[in-house]
Amino acid sequence: MTIVAVAKKAREASRRVADLPGSVRNAVLLDLADRIAGRETEILTANSEDMKAAEAAGVDAPKLKRLKLTPEGLRQMREGLRQIAGLPDPVGQVTRSYTVPSGLKVEKVRTPLGVIAMIYEARPGVTIDAFALCFKAGNACLLKGGKEADRSNRLLASIARESLDANGAPADAMHAITSSDREELKTMLTLSDDIDLVIPRGGAGLIRFVHEHSRIPTIQHFHGVCHVFVDKGADLEKALEIVATGKTSAPATCNTTECVLVHKDVAEAFLPRLIERAGKDGVEIRGDESFVGAAKGAAHVRSATDADWGTEYLDLILAARVVDSFDDAVAHIGRYSSGHTEAIVTEDNATAEDFCRRVRSSCVLVNASTRFNDGFQLGLGAEIGISTSRIHAYGPMGLEGLTIERFVVRGDGQTR
Amino acid sequence: MTIVAVAKKAREASRRVADLPGSVRNAVLLDLADRIAGRETEILTANSEDMKAAEAAGVDAPKLKRLKLTPEGLRQMREGLRQIAGLPDPVGQVTRSYTVPSGLKVEKVRTPLGVIAMIYEARPGVTIDAFALCFKAGNACLLKGGKEADRSNRLLASIARESLDANGAPADAMHAITSSDREELKTMLTLSDDIDLVIPRGGAGLIRFVHEHSRIPTIQHFHGVCHVFVDKGADLEKALEIVATGKTSAPATCNTTECVLVHKDVAEAFLPRLIERAGKDGVEIRGDESFVGAAKGAAHVRSATDADWGTEYLDLILAARVVDSFDDAVAHIGRYSSGHTEAIVTEDNATAEDFCRRVRSSCVLVNASTRFNDGFQLGLGAEIGISTSRIHAYGPMGLEGLTIERFVVRGDGQTR
Repeated sequence: MTIVAVAKKAREASRRVADLPGSVRNAVLLDLADRIAGRETEILTANSEDMKAAEAAGVDAPKLKRLKLTPEGLRQMREGLRQIAGLPDPVGQVTRSYTVPSGLKVEKVRTPLGVIAMIYEARPGVTIDAFALCFKAGNACLLKGGKEADRSNRLLASIARESLDANGAPADAMHAITSSDREELKTMLTLSDDIDLVIPRGGAGLIRFVHEHSRIPTIQHFHGVCHVFVDKGADLEKALEIVATGKTSAPATCNTTECVLVHKDVAEAFLPRLIERAGKDGVEIRGDESFVGAAKGAAHVRSATDADWGTEYLDLILAARVVDSFDDAVAHIGRYSSGHTEAIVTEDNATAEDFCRRVRSSCVLVNASTRFNDGFQLGLGAEIGISTSRIHAYGPMGLEGLTIERFVVRGDGQTR
Repeated sequence: MTIVAVAKKAREASRRVADLPGSVRNAVLLDLADRIAGRETEILTANSEDMKAAEAAGVDAPKLKRLKLTPEGLRQMREGLRQIAGLPDPVGQVTRSYTVPSGLKVEKVRTPLGVIAMIYEARPGVTIDAFALCFKAGNACLLKGGKEADRSNRLLASIARESLDANGAPADAMHAITSSDREELKTMLTLSDDIDLVIPRGGAGLIRFVHEHSRIPTIQHFHGVCHVFVDKGADLEKALEIVATGKTSAPATCNTTECVLVHKDVAEAFLPRLIERAGKDGVEIRGDESFVGAAKGAAHVRSATDADWGTEYLDLILAARVVDSFDDAVAHIGRYSSGHTEAIVTEDNATAEDFCRRVRSSCVLVNASTRFNDGFQLGLGAEIGISTSRIHAYGPMGLEGLTIERFVVRGDGQTR
């Protein structure tokens, strides 16, 4: 089937999905969890074939790690499905309700977006997770995962379609796009009559490609160049933990801390401690002159070049710089931030509030790690990703972000 | 200055605008109202030159009407500025606030989008209105109105820039793009680093052009093919008023009623009354067989062709059809609606609720005219247009639609 035909089928299915009661949508997700449990061996076999092919093709270790499914990973996948089934139904939620002078009763009501296309890495777990979120929010989806996960995705999609079919929902609400043909992707990105939203998630090359070719509204989940500013009013104990764990707890995630800015008034006290901690944690510091000076020749501290500011390392590397003032910190962030996540460490409330007002990233934190910019941590129940687009959804995007509010108005014969 | 340079200036200005207190933003709008009052003769002269040139170029009457500024129009423009200045400040509004298990206090806070580019018809009033809304919401804007309004727009923009400058706000927060060069527009649509949102408003050709060339997120304000369904449970008095005034009160607006669907059970009672009323109102009906039959040869009722379903007439013409059932009405709307506005007339609550659930246009009304899909009528205080995109904003788009919610999180040293 051509991508044009697939998108048309998804559009048709989306109308039926939007009409399904929440109980049916939840039943599909619970049924899918059971089917995944029942077919674990088959899934692991398909995945190990993907792994073998990827290894033979020389795919690198981090990518292989993301590709691999394990019994524990499948348990989490099932658990995720059950959690999403248990979340409140966003469809039909009334977010506001008021009466206007004409006597009309106005409601804003959440409604599905329609058809969502997601383009992502070779991570089979995302296939099930993205389907579950899109479908729970009443949408059909086209899921195009990285080609290395082809066998895994194809099998998972066919199981999901079985669950849809078995519960009276349209199987065409879920399509795994298995071709890795860029021409086909280009075509898909023009199908604005049948696709309402495109979510690209991944590296700069993919985002650029989608950006260049999409005629469909796009919300990008792009990179995070997350800063922590250690203010002169900081509790340095808190600052040390926030910076150190912000880098080490999951260095390859978009919410990892990539750059620390230290106010000059606390540099003398803070730099040696941070340098020592980084040494213990195996973190390389790319620092300015002050850091290099404070390092006294320690091998893990190197001179930063201009290219280090604004770089997303996704590795045990931390850019580090001393700033003369709060304003300089805000200016550095304004220039190099990717709009993802920024944090300040300070006990001074006025400074904290100023930071929250003037730094307008998708998530701004006071005295907490950048790693908390995450749908689960911020109470969304789930997330399909973290948007760095300043439109529709900015920051973690949960079920609500997969809906749109429309107006429902009840009158008694009003005309104008 | 090239469009690339203009957009860069707008981007720089947008950062300063977002930092301005609401009192300064309001002062600019009030100052602008005063300046417009003081320079009325100059503005009317510039506009009459635009009118003369447009007349000489053979521009049609409806377009000339939209182009023309009058003392009364300028009074409304000033009144609009004062009203917008008086609206609550959306910037910094906390829309939600809660604490998560880790102890983090999470807020969702409205923040400006950044730089908004609007592309619209030759309507100089929109230039001031769009600037006021964008700026009130903390944004910079690039406003590209139709070329026929060039002199009017250029003068109005220069006055707005004076107001910005006089109040300590950056003049570059407002740019009127006066060139009508399509190549320049194409270039503008690629400047995604410096423009956050494009709002095209106007005819199908313009929307298509923007759609084809934009690399920037776009919210379209497209056409309205608005339906009214007269259910078998309708109060026919209400139905008659809703359909008749929905067509006649402002036939050239996007929320005018373009098509009426009548349940067969009330056709015998309703059709003759609607046909009679249309005759009095000077409305032409393009009807199906039932309507033509009921018309008994009346000259203002003609046979509809397939092309009439889904047509936006923007004129005193109404498509009309009898349907066999509620489901047929919903199916007709599903097929031909532009997602703008749909209404049902019925006293049967269950049917009304079913309609509200199954018809997912940007605004769905019960027992009220489609003409109420309007930011002022629905209590938004103002509107920059009515979005038919199912992303970011769907329906009337007011100040809130010109902002985005971000996450502000306060902790006490939390790490993970």
